[in-house]
This record gives sequence, C-alpha cells and structure tokens, in this order.
Amino acid sequence: MKRAVVLLSGGLDSATVLAIASSEGWRCHALSVDYGQRHRAELDAAARVAKALGAHEHRIARVDLGVFGGSALTDPAIAVPRAPSEGIPITYVPARNTVFLALALAHAEVVEADAIFTGANAVDYSGYPDCRPEFLAAFERLANLATKRAVEGHPIAIEAPIVDMTKAEIVRRGAALGVDYALTVSCYEADAQGAACGACDACRFRREGFAAAGMPDPTRYRG
Amino acid sequence: MKRAVVLLSGGLDSATVLAIASSEGWRCHALSVDYGQRHRAELDAAARVAKALGAHEHRIARVDLGVFGGSALTDPAIAVPRAPSEGIPITYVPARNTVFLALALAHAEVVEADAIFTGANAVDYSGYPDCRPEFLAAFERLANLATKRAVEGHPIAIEAPIVDMTKAEIVRRGAALGVDYALTVSCYEADAQGAACGACDACRFRREGFAAAGMPDPTRYRG
Repeated sequence: MKRAVVLLSGGLDSATVLAIASSEGWRCHALSVDYGQRHRAELDAAARVAKALGAHEHRIARVDLGVFGGSALTDPAIAVPRAPSEGIPITYVPARNTVFLALALAHAEVVEADAIFTGANAVDYSGYPDCRPEFLAAFERLANLATKRAVEGHPIAIEAPIVDMTKAEIVRRGAALGVDYALTVSCYEADAQGAACGACDACRFRREGFAAAGMPDPTRYRG
Repeated sequence: MKRAVVLLSGGLDSATVLAIASSEGWRCHALSVDYGQRHRAELDAAARVAKALGAHEHRIARVDLGVFGGSALTDPAIAVPRAPSEGIPITYVPARNTVFLALALAHAEVVEADAIFTGANAVDYSGYPDCRPEFLAAFERLANLATKRAVEGHPIAIEAPIVDMTKAEIVRRGAALGVDYALTVSCYEADAQGAACGACDACRFRREGFAAAGMPDPTRYRG
C-alpha cells in the first residue's frame, strides 16, 4: 500500500485533504506541528480527526517558531485581527509552510512515503505566499534534491488537492467523503475546548464556506 | 548595515562561514538548531564561536527531529560508524538542511535579513544530498516564493561560500580570518565537554583538513 504523509492542522482544509488521500487509497501518516501556536486546541482536533478518518498513525512534531516572533499566532503580544485587513495579515507566520513541509519531508523519508499532502489553498485564503501553487511546485523540486531516498530513485510528490477549490467546494467534497467538521477547529483564537471566536479571518472564511455550500455550520462558537 | 542569518552548528565549517560573512560587512544573526543531536556539545561551541567572532546575536531554535528517527545522530539506538562506509552514511539526518534552512528563513524574515549563510560543503563531506549546490539553488528559488518579505520586493540569497572548498582550503581561509578552531566541535560523539572521539567521519575529515593545510590540529581528543 502506497504511503503518504498528510499535514493535519486540525482545521477544515487539512481534514478534507486527509479524507481525499484516504479515499485515493493512500496509507496516511498524519503529521501535526506544535509550533507554539496560540490556538493549541487545533492539535486536539487533529488527533480526533486522524482517528475518525482512519489515519495509519498521527504524530506531533514540536518546533519553536515563537523564538522568532513576528506573528499574531506565535507572539502573545500581537493581537489577532477581528476584521479583514489589507494585504497579508499579521496572522502570517514567517516561513511556516516551508518549515511544515520540511518536517513532513523528514517524516516521509523515514516512513518511505511517496507523497506529502497539504491543505494549502489559494482561493478563499488570507494571501499567505506559502499557500500558492508556485510555492508548492518549488518545494517539490527542492524535495527531490534534498533527501537520500529521492536521490536513490524514489521521488516524492507534493499533493495539494484543494489548492484551487473555493471553501464551499472544499466542505462539499469533505462532506461527501464523510468528514465530520464538528471535530475540526479553524479559529485562530479557539479556547482550550476548541470553541471559536467567530470574528477572525479563519472563522470568517469557514462560516462563509458553509453558507455558500448551503450546509449547516457545525462550528461551536463562544457565547 | 546589511543583515544576514548565519547557520552556526558549532563545527569547523560554519565557524569559517561566520568569519567570512563578518569580514564581508554583514551584521550576523547566528542561528543554531537544537534538533535532538547526540553531540550536544556543539551547541555550547556555537555560543563560544558566535561570541568570539562578534556575531550581532546568537539564537538557538528547538525542533525535535528525534520524533522521526532514522539517523545515528538522533536515535540513540543507532551507533555512529567508526570507519568510512559506502554511500550516504547512517549519520545522514532526513531532511536536516531543509529544516535548518526553513528555520533560518523564518528568522531572516523577522530580522529583515537579505541573506542566509550556510556551511554546506560538497567536497570533503559525507555525500549528504542536502549539501550540494543544486539543492541550495533550489532552496533559494523556494525561499523567494515563500515569504511575505520576498514577495513584497526583498529577495533573499542563500550564500554557501565554502561549498566548493576542500577542508584544507576552509581551515586556511578561517585561520587567515582569525578563527580559533579550538573553540569548535565537529565530532558526532563529542562528550559533554566537547572532547572528540577521533574516529567518526566528522573527526576524520577535520583531522585530514588540518594535516593537508599543514596546520596544527587544535582538537581535544578523548584519552
């Protein structure tokens, strides 16, 4: 059975990607990253999602991106915006997807995976540069020069099956595959129990996605 | 003053690179990575080297590569070879330089650096794929698609000034720039005080480098 590492944040997008990879017959090695994010409830959500969707394993890698700062998601002194902003917002975490994909590459080499699945999306998103198809293509090229496994004849593919989908298309696809979105946490300011703020960009894109898809929003919002 | 992030392991190569970057007028933000390596004495060496060579700052980023395993440097159950081996040796750490450069990229974005310096070397080395010029060129291309800073018009360069040098050329160059190699630790099995085993690949390349350069070897070997 062919193996894949699936980056799983615990949010809506990556849960959908895990369901897609499973449906395509991959043995899924789910990987979450504890990078010092303020919304740590997403890590609990990732564990629930991995179990519910039958991942072969679920691992959490720790990396301290807080040591660098520069983002509302890793620096408690920087507030998460509660309204849309111009340009790339302060929730952008410097080089986050480069770091995540690098860790996934390490994991992929050890478990002998032929693909890394990412929930990167470049449609209903915050404009983060490391979610764009050209970034992902450049990472795939890098990855095939980077590892012993690749240079010994086992190339690796970076799969981003939802990169060009709208949020509505994503939730429809996931629902058709049996994803229980009540298990997922997207909110940047989710509390310890995973209840969402309803105001941040992540909440906004998520809510609009369910509305556009004509589906009930299963998100638990704080009172 | 233009700024650079300099990856500093505490070994001979990266100490030389820090001296080169400083001599070229860069303000050097030295970055070491605590990745669960067995030769943790190199982190102390990195701090000494950063101070001795006048780095603007020295930071240690933590990332747990031991969670993946697959290398003698992160898995205590795998022995470090004490004789040369065929092919890429078991001291290879999956995706290590991809992870290190990704962390350097995060740091570079926050401190507004225009370059990342790495001590990668593809001459007197162990054949690690992520030390080759084509890997480094692919990373530079990726980096310029990855960050907010790059897409907003501030490109970043990956500088590998010793990538094509022999070990003898490296130590001659460093000595000319005033590097005190007694401060550095290269050995994969260095003890807590930084004393070297004298038998691993890292010790062998280092010793042969000093010999070929006709310079005294300042390494402290264990009795």
